[in-house]
Amino acid sequence: MRPVCVLGLGLIGGSVLKAATRAGWEAFGVTLEPVADSRVEPTMAAALSRAAETDALIVLAVPLPSIDDVLREVAQHAPDCLLTDVVSVKQPVAEAVARRLPKARYAGGHPMAGKSASGWDAASESLFDEAAWVVTTDEDTPHDAWRAAVDLALACGARVVPTTTGEHDAAVARISHLPHILAAVLASTGADGGSLALSLAAGSFRDGTRVMCTRPELVLAMCDGNRGPLLEAVDEALGRLGAARGALASTGGLAATVRAGHDGRQALEDLRNAEHEEFPIDLTDPEAFESLRDLGTAGGHVLRMEGDTAICALPA
Amino acid sequence: MRPVCVLGLGLIGGSVLKAATRAGWEAFGVTLEPVADSRVEPTMAAALSRAAETDALIVLAVPLPSIDDVLREVAQHAPDCLLTDVVSVKQPVAEAVARRLPKARYAGGHPMAGKSASGWDAASESLFDEAAWVVTTDEDTPHDAWRAAVDLALACGARVVPTTTGEHDAAVARISHLPHILAAVLASTGADGGSLALSLAAGSFRDGTRVMCTRPELVLAMCDGNRGPLLEAVDEALGRLGAARGALASTGGLAATVRAGHDGRQALEDLRNAEHEEFPIDLTDPEAFESLRDLGTAGGHVLRMEGDTAICALPA
Repeated sequence: MRPVCVLGLGLIGGSVLKAATRAGWEAFGVTLEPVADSRVEPTMAAALSRAAETDALIVLAVPLPSIDDVLREVAQHAPDCLLTDVVSVKQPVAEAVARRLPKARYAGGHPMAGKSASGWDAASESLFDEAAWVVTTDEDTPHDAWRAAVDLALACGARVVPTTTGEHDAAVARISHLPHILAAVLASTGADGGSLALSLAAGSFRDGTRVMCTRPELVLAMCDGNRGPLLEAVDEALGRLGAARGALASTGGLAATVRAGHDGRQALEDLRNAEHEEFPIDLTDPEAFESLRDLGTAGGHVLRMEGDTAICALPA
Repeated sequence: MRPVCVLGLGLIGGSVLKAATRAGWEAFGVTLEPVADSRVEPTMAAALSRAAETDALIVLAVPLPSIDDVLREVAQHAPDCLLTDVVSVKQPVAEAVARRLPKARYAGGHPMAGKSASGWDAASESLFDEAAWVVTTDEDTPHDAWRAAVDLALACGARVVPTTTGEHDAAVARISHLPHILAAVLASTGADGGSLALSLAAGSFRDGTRVMCTRPELVLAMCDGNRGPLLEAVDEALGRLGAARGALASTGGLAATVRAGHDGRQALEDLRNAEHEEFPIDLTDPEAFESLRDLGTAGGHVLRMEGDTAICALPA
C-alpha cells in the first residue's frame, strides 16, 4: 500500500491521517500547530522529502488561501508524487495545481463531513465513516491519481461520489456554502431581536445557526473560493425569499414556499432511504469515467474497489 | 390544585397533558384523533362541562385556524373558567378571545419547544423541561389567569418568560418563524441541484432544513398568523442576504456577513452560559407586571413561585 502524506492537520487533514492509520496505511504529515505525535514531521520539507522517498500520495489539507504556497513546496521537494486534496472547492485548487505543477498527476477530493470544532484535537478517525467523498472525475483526470484518491477515501470509511470539478462546485454552493450564508443571516437577524428573542430561541433557531459556531476564517475561506457558483445559489435563494415576502404581504400566505421546502427536504430523505442497486464499472473500459460521472449525477456512489472494477451503488 | 383541561392533544397539547399529569395535576382533554386514554373525554362538550364543574384551567392547544371554533364551544359550555393557550402567536389568539369571550380571564402562553414529529404519540411529558414558556404579561392581563398559566408552565418543567403580546410576536418572528422560511428556501434551492447535490448534503444542509420535516400545515398555521412581525423579520433577512450578495459579487467577500452571524450565534451561547442572579418580585406590588416585563426584555425568567412571590433569574 502506498503511504499517504497529509499537508495540514486541522480537523479534516488530521482526520484523514487518523483514518488512514486506522485502515493500516503508513500515514504521516505536517502542520503549523505544535502537535506531539510520531506521525507528524517537523517541517514541510521533511514531510515532502519522506513523501518523495516513499512515493506517497500527497494530500493537500490546508485552507484554500494557503494552497499556492504549499504547492510551491511540493514542486520543490516532491514534484512526482500523486496528488489529491480535501479542500471544499475544486476549481481554484485545480487551477493552482495547473499553475504550480503543470505536470502533476492530480485528482481533486472533498470529503463531505465536518463539525464546528476545529484543529488536530477535534480530528477523528471516524469522521468520514459513511460520508460522501467527492473525487473529481474530469475528462483529463489522470487515472493513477484518481485511483489513489479513491483508495484513500474508501480506506477512510467514505463512499466515493465521482463528478466533475464544475458540477462539484455548483452542488456544494447549494448544499454547503449557502447553508452557511443563510445561517449567518438568521443568526444576525435573531440577535437583533435582543435578549428576549435569544432567550426564546429553541430548536429551529439553534439548528439553523449551528454552523455559525465555526471559526469565521474557515467559513470565509470556503465561501470566498467558490464565488461564481455561490452567486448563482444566493441569487436563487434571494428570488425564493423575495417571492415568500411578496406572498406573505399579499393574500397568498406562505403555502408555496413551505410546500416546496417540505418537498425538497423529503427528496433528501427519499435519497437517503432509497434501495440501492449494485453494479460494476470496469475501469479499463475507455468510457469508465463517463459512466462514473453519470453515477454521480444520479446520486450514486462507489462502494468499493475489486481489482480494476468499481463496485457502484445507484439509488433505485 | 386546579385541574387542567387541554383542548387539542397534538404534540404540544398532548405534552401539556402528560407533563401536568407527571406533576400530579388532575388533567384531562379532548382531541379529534382516536386516542385511547382515560384522560381523554369523548367530546368537546364533555371535556368543557367537566372543566366548568371542576373550575379547571382551560388550555387552547389547537392550531390557530381552529381557535375561533373552539372558543365558541368554550363560551357555550365553560365561559367562566380561567383560560390560557399554547399557540405560537399571541395577538390573533388575544383578538379571538376578546371577540368570542369578552369577559374571559385569559393570559396567553407559548412553550418554546417542539420537534418535527407531530400528534399524541409524539407528545412527551418531558418536552418542556428546561424550555422557555412565555406567559403574556400585558397591562390588562388578569392576575388570576396569569398566575394559573404560570403555575402550569412551571409544573410542566419550563421556566416562564414574561413579556407583552406584541413583543412576543416580534421575537418569535425572528427566532422561530424566520428559521422555518429560511429552511424552506434552503431546502428548495438545495433540491434544485438534483440528486448529486442531495447526495453530497452533510450536516450544514441537514441542520438548516430539519424543520422542513414538519407537516406544512403546521408551519403555515404558525407563520401565516404572524404576518406583520414576520414581514419585518423577512425584510431584514432579505436586506442582509442582498448585502451578502453584493459583497460577494464585488471584491468585499463575505467577511461582514459571516462575522455578524458568528457574533449573533455567540450572543446566544453567552446568554445560555451566563451566570444568573436570583431575586424576588412581589406579585402584590402594583408594579409587579412592569418588573416582570423588564425581566423578560433582559433575557430573564421566572424560576418558581413561593406564595405571592416570583423567584426570578436574570443573566448577569
